[in-house]
Amino acid sequence: MRNLKIKIEYKGTNYCGWQTQKNNRNTRLQTLQRKSIQEIIEEILQKILQEKVKLISSGRTDAGVHALGQVANFKTTSNIIPKRLQKSLNDLLPEDIVVTSVEEVGGDFHSRFNAKSKVYRYTILNRNYPSVFLKDTVYFYPYPLDIRLMRKESRVLIGRHDFKSFQASGKKEIDTIRTIKKIKILKNKDLIFVDIEGNGFLHNMVRSIVGTLLEIGRGRLRRGSLKKILLSRDRKAAGPTLPARGLCLVKVNY
Amino acid sequence: MRNLKIKIEYKGTNYCGWQTQKNNRNTRLQTLQRKSIQEIIEEILQKILQEKVKLISSGRTDAGVHALGQVANFKTTSNIIPKRLQKSLNDLLPEDIVVTSVEEVGGDFHSRFNAKSKVYRYTILNRNYPSVFLKDTVYFYPYPLDIRLMRKESRVLIGRHDFKSFQASGKKEIDTIRTIKKIKILKNKDLIFVDIEGNGFLHNMVRSIVGTLLEIGRGRLRRGSLKKILLSRDRKAAGPTLPARGLCLVKVNY
Repeated sequence: MRNLKIKIEYKGTNYCGWQTQKNNRNTRLQTLQRKSIQEIIEEILQKILQEKVKLISSGRTDAGVHALGQVANFKTTSNIIPKRLQKSLNDLLPEDIVVTSVEEVGGDFHSRFNAKSKVYRYTILNRNYPSVFLKDTVYFYPYPLDIRLMRKESRVLIGRHDFKSFQASGKKEIDTIRTIKKIKILKNKDLIFVDIEGNGFLHNMVRSIVGTLLEIGRGRLRRGSLKKILLSRDRKAAGPTLPARGLCLVKVNY
Repeated sequence: MRNLKIKIEYKGTNYCGWQTQKNNRNTRLQTLQRKSIQEIIEEILQKILQEKVKLISSGRTDAGVHALGQVANFKTTSNIIPKRLQKSLNDLLPEDIVVTSVEEVGGDFHSRFNAKSKVYRYTILNRNYPSVFLKDTVYFYPYPLDIRLMRKESRVLIGRHDFKSFQASGKKEIDTIRTIKKIKILKNKDLIFVDIEGNGFLHNMVRSIVGTLLEIGRGRLRRGSLKKILLSRDRKAAGPTLPARGLCLVKVNY
């Protein structure tokens, strides 16, 4: 069987997430009725290849979260040319899901187990009026922010830490230790980008880290807070979990 | 009466245009049922100011065309503070219309008559797969383009010319002479921006100019074609009118 690796770009707004998440307390009822992105791609792959396909992805993304570089792979008996498969997929997929590449990889490549790190970007629109073009892809935050302080504070997160304080409330993952390799806060006109690269992320981890950084940038939490919050291992100490719309899985490194 | 000038950003996708256009042969039936952006803003202004308001804008934009910097003005007896009016408007406007500034101007300021020039941008996504994030705001064109040739050819448009060849078919404006001040073709990764500044534009002029430039860039029309087309004063000689979604009114200069 051939092993095909695909890269996917999607706008998560109208989906229940990459994968259907049952028993998720935070999932609103309406999102349960929506399809998952994985389901849709699998259905179309099966239509094209005329065989059952099981996609393995680098990991889930939540309802409303976007991706520029989600990665998945699947086994197939088909000998379709990758370029042709990409074209057929994009002809049949809805407008908010696009396959940006298809390539044949070694039989042992596994999108999740082989992932070395992932890069997430959280985008904030920081001006006094929202954007009509970016409304589904940024978090509108009209308050003045001290970006320098946010940058300085964010450095304490780099390295291997217990990120229990930034885990979704109600979640009880036993191992809450993760490694953040890089964290960068960039500003381009009215947009602020928080780029976080890590070997793995707890549920809602990026969104609650950025929520906490905004509290610091706005002056609601003082200098040194982030370190205390990290050490507290207490979700209630951290800032709010920001909306999914600002979050995007940018890249998976192998 | 005070004269208030407002700047508006809008995503035109779900509207019949800036102004309701009756008797427009090119307007599909469904767009006739949609509201115009002007109508919506007027309704909300009236709700806030409790008086009838007539907006004067720099000019119309077609169904599906966007704006980053549309300008309009109106007379009012209200003494509302501009900042507060902006806030109230943005609280009540739908998500795809945003007022980016409100300021009081002299009584004789007129958004249309005082406009010295307008800048339109047409955006092309030039790669082999579409974008999930930009689908409503760019024109997806997957064929290789000779940007240098497009730039070179485009220069013949600069200056005062009869642009009859680039007027919407079916339109019979008597004066088809306009002045293009600047035309710039920029490339940033997969995106190509065609920026055109002029003292005024015929209906569909930018979209058919860019449609013609793409034919040249793709090699379907040869070097020197644009000049011939311009001189022909014949709509049939020019390239196709591109879809509205790629077009945006960027700025109005006064």
